[in-house]
Amino acid sequence: MSAIINPVGTMQVLSNREVKKLQDTSQKGLHRLFRQCCLAVLNGEHQGDCAEEMMSMYQDFNIRIIQEQRGLKLELINAPAEAFVAGKLVRGVRENLFSVLRDILYVSSHISDDPRFDGGNGTDITHIVFEILRNAGAFITKQVPDTVVCWGGHSISREEYEYTQKVGYHLGLRYLNICTGCGPGAMKGPMKGAYIAHAKQRVNHSRFIGLTEPGIIAAESPNPIVNELIILPDIEKRLEAFVRFGHGIVVFPGGAGTCEEILYLLGILLNPANKSMPFPLVFTGPASAKSYFEDIDAFIGKTLGAEAQQRYQIIVDNPLEVAKIMRDGLETVTRYRRQHGDAYYFNWLLTVDEHFQKPFEPTHDNMAALELKLSLPPHELAANLRRAMSGIVAGNIKEEGVIAIRENGPFQLSGDPELMQEIDALLQSFVDHYRMKLPGSHYQPCYQIVQ
Amino acid sequence: MSAIINPVGTMQVLSNREVKKLQDTSQKGLHRLFRQCCLAVLNGEHQGDCAEEMMSMYQDFNIRIIQEQRGLKLELINAPAEAFVAGKLVRGVRENLFSVLRDILYVSSHISDDPRFDGGNGTDITHIVFEILRNAGAFITKQVPDTVVCWGGHSISREEYEYTQKVGYHLGLRYLNICTGCGPGAMKGPMKGAYIAHAKQRVNHSRFIGLTEPGIIAAESPNPIVNELIILPDIEKRLEAFVRFGHGIVVFPGGAGTCEEILYLLGILLNPANKSMPFPLVFTGPASAKSYFEDIDAFIGKTLGAEAQQRYQIIVDNPLEVAKIMRDGLETVTRYRRQHGDAYYFNWLLTVDEHFQKPFEPTHDNMAALELKLSLPPHELAANLRRAMSGIVAGNIKEEGVIAIRENGPFQLSGDPELMQEIDALLQSFVDHYRMKLPGSHYQPCYQIVQ
Amino acid sequence: MSAIINPVGTMQVLSNREVKKLQDTSQKGLHRLFRQCCLAVLNGEHQGDCAEEMMSMYQDFNIRIIQEQRGLKLELINAPAEAFVAGKLVRGVRENLFSVLRDILYVSSHISDDPRFDGGNGTDITHIVFEILRNAGAFITKQVPDTVVCWGGHSISREEYEYTQKVGYHLGLRYLNICTGCGPGAMKGPMKGAYIAHAKQRVNHSRFIGLTEPGIIAAESPNPIVNELIILPDIEKRLEAFVRFGHGIVVFPGGAGTCEEILYLLGILLNPANKSMPFPLVFTGPASAKSYFEDIDAFIGKTLGAEAQQRYQIIVDNPLEVAKIMRDGLETVTRYRRQHGDAYYFNWLLTVDEHFQKPFEPTHDNMAALELKLSLPPHELAANLRRAMSGIVAGNIKEEGVIAIRENGPFQLSGDPELMQEIDALLQSFVDHYRMKLPGSHYQPCYQIVQ
Amino acid sequence: MSAIINPVGTMQVLSNREVKKLQDTSQKGLHRLFRQCCLAVLNGEHQGDCAEEMMSMYQDFNIRIIQEQRGLKLELINAPAEAFVAGKLVRGVRENLFSVLRDILYVSSHISDDPRFDGGNGTDITHIVFEILRNAGAFITKQVPDTVVCWGGHSISREEYEYTQKVGYHLGLRYLNICTGCGPGAMKGPMKGAYIAHAKQRVNHSRFIGLTEPGIIAAESPNPIVNELIILPDIEKRLEAFVRFGHGIVVFPGGAGTCEEILYLLGILLNPANKSMPFPLVFTGPASAKSYFEDIDAFIGKTLGAEAQQRYQIIVDNPLEVAKIMRDGLETVTRYRRQHGDAYYFNWLLTVDEHFQKPFEPTHDNMAALELKLSLPPHELAANLRRAMSGIVAGNIKEEGVIAIRENGPFQLSGDPELMQEIDALLQSFVDHYRMKLPGSHYQPCYQIVQ
Repeated sequence: MSAIINPVGTMQVLSNREVKKLQDTSQKGLHRLFRQCCLAVLNGEHQGDCAEEMMSMYQDFNIRIIQEQRGLKLELINAPAEAFVAGKLVRGVRENLFSVLRDILYVSSHISDDPRFDGGNGTDITHIVFEILRNAGAFITKQVPDTVVCWGGHSISREEYEYTQKVGYHLGLRYLNICTGCGPGAMKGPMKGAYIAHAKQRVNHSRFIGLTEPGIIAAESPNPIVNELIILPDIEKRLEAFVRFGHGIVVFPGGAGTCEEILYLLGILLNPANKSMPFPLVFTGPASAKSYFEDIDAFIGKTLGAEAQQRYQIIVDNPLEVAKIMRDGLETVTRYRRQHGDAYYFNWLLTVDEHFQKPFEPTHDNMAALELKLSLPPHELAANLRRAMSGIVAGNIKEEGVIAIRENGPFQLSGDPELMQEIDALLQSFVDHYRMKLPGSHYQPCYQIVQ
Repeated sequence: MSAIINPVGTMQVLSNREVKKLQDTSQKGLHRLFRQCCLAVLNGEHQGDCAEEMMSMYQDFNIRIIQEQRGLKLELINAPAEAFVAGKLVRGVRENLFSVLRDILYVSSHISDDPRFDGGNGTDITHIVFEILRNAGAFITKQVPDTVVCWGGHSISREEYEYTQKVGYHLGLRYLNICTGCGPGAMKGPMKGAYIAHAKQRVNHSRFIGLTEPGIIAAESPNPIVNELIILPDIEKRLEAFVRFGHGIVVFPGGAGTCEEILYLLGILLNPANKSMPFPLVFTGPASAKSYFEDIDAFIGKTLGAEAQQRYQIIVDNPLEVAKIMRDGLETVTRYRRQHGDAYYFNWLLTVDEHFQKPFEPTHDNMAALELKLSLPPHELAANLRRAMSGIVAGNIKEEGVIAIRENGPFQLSGDPELMQEIDALLQSFVDHYRMKLPGSHYQPCYQIVQ
Repeated sequence: MSAIINPVGTMQVLSNREVKKLQDTSQKGLHRLFRQCCLAVLNGEHQGDCAEEMMSMYQDFNIRIIQEQRGLKLELINAPAEAFVAGKLVRGVRENLFSVLRDILYVSSHISDDPRFDGGNGTDITHIVFEILRNAGAFITKQVPDTVVCWGGHSISREEYEYTQKVGYHLGLRYLNICTGCGPGAMKGPMKGAYIAHAKQRVNHSRFIGLTEPGIIAAESPNPIVNELIILPDIEKRLEAFVRFGHGIVVFPGGAGTCEEILYLLGILLNPANKSMPFPLVFTGPASAKSYFEDIDAFIGKTLGAEAQQRYQIIVDNPLEVAKIMRDGLETVTRYRRQHGDAYYFNWLLTVDEHFQKPFEPTHDNMAALELKLSLPPHELAANLRRAMSGIVAGNIKEEGVIAIRENGPFQLSGDPELMQEIDALLQSFVDHYRMKLPGSHYQPCYQIVQ
Repeated sequence: MSAIINPVGTMQVLSNREVKKLQDTSQKGLHRLFRQCCLAVLNGEHQGDCAEEMMSMYQDFNIRIIQEQRGLKLELINAPAEAFVAGKLVRGVRENLFSVLRDILYVSSHISDDPRFDGGNGTDITHIVFEILRNAGAFITKQVPDTVVCWGGHSISREEYEYTQKVGYHLGLRYLNICTGCGPGAMKGPMKGAYIAHAKQRVNHSRFIGLTEPGIIAAESPNPIVNELIILPDIEKRLEAFVRFGHGIVVFPGGAGTCEEILYLLGILLNPANKSMPFPLVFTGPASAKSYFEDIDAFIGKTLGAEAQQRYQIIVDNPLEVAKIMRDGLETVTRYRRQHGDAYYFNWLLTVDEHFQKPFEPTHDNMAALELKLSLPPHELAANLRRAMSGIVAGNIKEEGVIAIRENGPFQLSGDPELMQEIDALLQSFVDHYRMKLPGSHYQPCYQIVQ
């Protein structure tokens, strides 16, 4: 399908320079990145988690910017037909295309091209996360804390999917909004559930925020229900956005990515500076997922200790209870922010260590060098385990990671034998339950545990 | 649960007289009717189709009107707890309560109390239907025809329910709105599907119109997704509202009520004056419903003839196709209205014979007196068959009907033996497939075929 | 100018019957009234107070209703060119045309044609006033009392006009809305002033309510700034609308009409039942109007007594002070309504005697029969004086009145010599200061004081 | 008056860094500039054009930023009482304070602090003008060209002021918006007139755009009617904003500033690259201003030649005609932009020479060095004359300029005797008609013509 698309939403006016940058197909230009993210958005209805496959399916896809008297338009050439209904692009997809454009330009202008930005400085990183969210219009100052982040796998069972819908439904009945990583599975179910509940509560401005990154957007295409798509430049900034922007977190079953998210958050919450900070956190799933969370819980107990375990509640098969806990938890957050004069829309007071902020590049060398020892202080161990999981996600579904694995074989992970055994068992259970990749494809592990 | 409810929407200001009327518990007052309809609305989440049961469950429920400086409030006493979330009435329910109030007052003032209204005059009836809809704000003049009426049973299988959702989804992707009789089953599924599609198309003002009547509202409680609830005074005006307000109709499997609707519509369309009037009409269901529609089709063929059969299409297991046919059909309707200068929002040009307009009271005598002969002209036969079905619906679930049956035994229907056999077979198939009443309850037929 | 006009605002949908009624040029049809009121609205920019002149200028003006698929349109034939800018009807005029249509239909349907309405019953009259305002959407329940009625002459000096603007400005700065009789002069100045103030206060939904009647609309054409035009059927209902809908009243200099308004209001406030009812009332004008208010005050003192005089304050040349008094007064009103549970938008608790409600037809006989005696109880005297003034306004500018005077000579007013002298002096001062008719025209009194 | 102010409009969320910058009272901080501009905005109702006087009147005024859970607030300490009504800051003033904050931060971040911005490069300057306007939300892409810039003096006669209102009124009736330099006099009158017209046309989103600069805002305080206040960093960028953002220009009588604006625009339009560019330009005033425009016209004829004279029309005493010409002119502009694919909201195609873009600092040396010779090419002469006028404005009312004059005496201007005589005569006529400073103050020329 080819079509010319009018803008919707805020970003409608570009300068000549910005257009040039987006059209620039050279290395320093943005065209390649822009095209790829747009393709992912257009592919939102597609069932699949293989970025490469999608890219190769739509090799002749292209996107052009047209400047006109009323602003800009996008010309799509050979776009996925699923994004169209009766010859017209689905409006949610249309909006999300312009979000892509907005964020790619902003990040390019304020990070890559700005000599003032120091990528290695924690304060700078936090500020850039803040600014990307602000530029995306994500801060609505009138609202009291109402945003629940839902984490969980893109590849989950039908039963688990319906469970995420039910949790979303009860959250939605309580006027809460949903923020996810914006792919399928546990990232889509809660939004659908919440949306139906919002219909009953006559919520006109439901917010379904999707936080993604260029590396993963192709594998976890944003569902068109996402009505605030925001692209952070890398996984570390994306994770920081989740924990500073969201007010509470529900974790559904998932694979390595979900595990990375849990380790990231617990690592931060273990920081003594965050001791008194309320942060509602619930792990939940249907009855069939009971053992899943028992495994995770045991792993956390053994690696990060009992203190980490006290930071979350595990609720099995009780969507209503989950919603009530989150609702109460958000009220605690509201009180805390008010007492401390912190913004409702951005958790400035949360201390995030630079270990968790600095981009980790999952090369074979970096992965092999990860120190995985039980003797490390818990939040350092959490940081390293998080990196390990991050690398596995990359090796599973991110373009660069997949290529690196194909060329150099699986990542080598080594450390304390006892710890390595735990890791191995956990990962293996993800593999066994099709949590690494969608069922149907054979999963070839991208890692090797060297004991 | 007890609570005091602020109004939402338009009807916020009552005169002292109107309040008095609504509070008046005497025979000529409106309180009884008002209380009953409100209870039905509050009961929207309840699964059940037995009005009597509901009424007896909430005998101590009451509703009071409070006049205050900012308008009126409603005080609910001992209301069903399911209508509340975290102690607050679900907003959709709240809105619908005020719709009840609006329509009950309007009908009382413009029909029952107005000496100018002549209930037996067809033009008067059409005008009152128009005025009730207008007073409810149902006419949005900017919109081109976009309202699809979905008919079908409240008691359908899981598979059929999911199918209605899918049809709704594809209708919603085409920006269409849904109008139903506002109960569960086939009256709820299409709305849910369309709503999710509207999220993707960023439709902010989805319209989910529910047309109901005091006699049936208790048995088929309006789902809170219905955001435009309109109460017509009786089934005949409700049916006329469907066909003049809706732009096309999709029929899902159902029981006697659905059958009544089909007979009503075909009877009208058989009127020579409506010969050239476009009216998109599709009968559809999942593969498992194939035989259902074959039976209906055969029955229509035998009773109303081939001309009637040409007025609809049967589509099995193809939601996308249904949506496309309706979309195309609505465009034909749009052109027709434009050519003939008829309103987009109300089909003035449709001729409805007084046979179909005048209220039919399903007493035992009236039912027994129905002339059911194949020798009647098709549209007269359709009118009588419609009345027979209407009586059966009343005997099944309307309060007065149920009482009459309990006291006097089943209705006696008689006529041409050949025709009676057809009727018997059709009704029996409804019984066999739990289309008369929700599964779980034993269905005791309220009719008897006298051959 | 001729043009076809799309509707704006709420009344866009008519039934066939309503259209027929509006098109009906026979005696019982509404066309004559509709045409005349529309012409007045179209003439809003015209400077002049002579209805007859206007009517004769536009004898070939006509208006037709066109029903179409999107609702109705109005076709204007030979309309006043001043209502158009660049060939298009000024939008404010357009809106007001549809208000005319709305109110004429409503009044016809609910008063003239409704056998249930009893024109002589006070409660019925109050309810019909309420219903006309409600039907016009005039009740905004969210708002606390904020509507200041401004009374005063259509024919005032430049200095007085600028003064009314300044008062309006300071009222507007306090977020207050303006309600007037919607003609020129003191009925327009406050709106202009308030509007500029609203710009500074970023008030997006300024309300400029104009209450008029078919008899006077032609002489005092609604200014297009009026954005809520409401046509009451006669002067008595219009006055009742002012005092039940407005929350406080500012009186600027004026002639017989203004005097009628003052007498009406004081007559009501003198009713013992209204003793504790707060009703902010200020008489004000520039320094040059000082003697004017001294005369009025003296006249009230002599006729209605000191109690009446305590109901108002006279403020000379101090717009800011006027605004502050009104702002404070409205807060008192707000408290009072809240304490007594009375509506913010309609003063149900104000007692209006039937003397002030029943239409007074100013025939020569009725005028001559008016009992004008100082020995009458004050509120009865006020009622009769109000009628006398009402008759003089009719004789001055209402079509029927003007014709009656032309045919039968001036009205004869008689009564206590002392009182008649006072009346004569007051009226003469109106004549001398061009308050009866616009300067330029020679004023021929329509009354004669028989002493 | 002291008060704490909630934000309105878009800029509600600041990062910690931004707050720090605004609070920073050191040389590199923004506090001094922020305080000064805010004071000017708060002083919008004050009649006066002396920045120094105002600054000294409110020496103890201060402004602080408060970060809270819902975003930021401003604390005002000892602010001018005129900005408050009933103890609350006028909302228009409130909004404009947040506009100040927005623009000061933006300019600081994107010009002063950004090493990438090259102040001497014409393309960079144009882009920064574009970006400041975009960041201010000034680009509304849906609208066809509808913005008329009104230039003219802050110190004009009552008659001229009323004339500007009338022109504004007729522009407003044609749905046009007004953009000015946002001070009093000819910068306020057209807005008031247009606003009243917008009321009649029911324009809900009137745009009254004020373009100002830190150097002049204190002398020409923005009137609160301005609802889009934008602060450009210097006069050159402000002038470029006027000509690229506005679609046509009306010039009313004025002094040196108005003369600067005329010379700037004509200088640009004389550029051969702009030959075919439509640019509606009308000089207009009441009958009494006839000779004023004759003088200006003659001066232009002698200095820039007949070609320049063909770029404008002089209309005396005919507001309706002015409005018609602008309306037609804007339609020509619309067609031109559409044909050339140029943006409706920003005139990219207009060529502005760097002579007109680079900031001119009006020091005594720079002023003395200005080459003022009739032998220069017209657009160069225009550039230099523009600079001379700019210097005089600075010497008259800008803080730095006034100080420089006080310390070093008047600027010395020299050049061709014939030209100098013309300049002298023109400036003297401004002095004689109180166009340099408000009447009442004695005007001491800040320049000396050295012949």
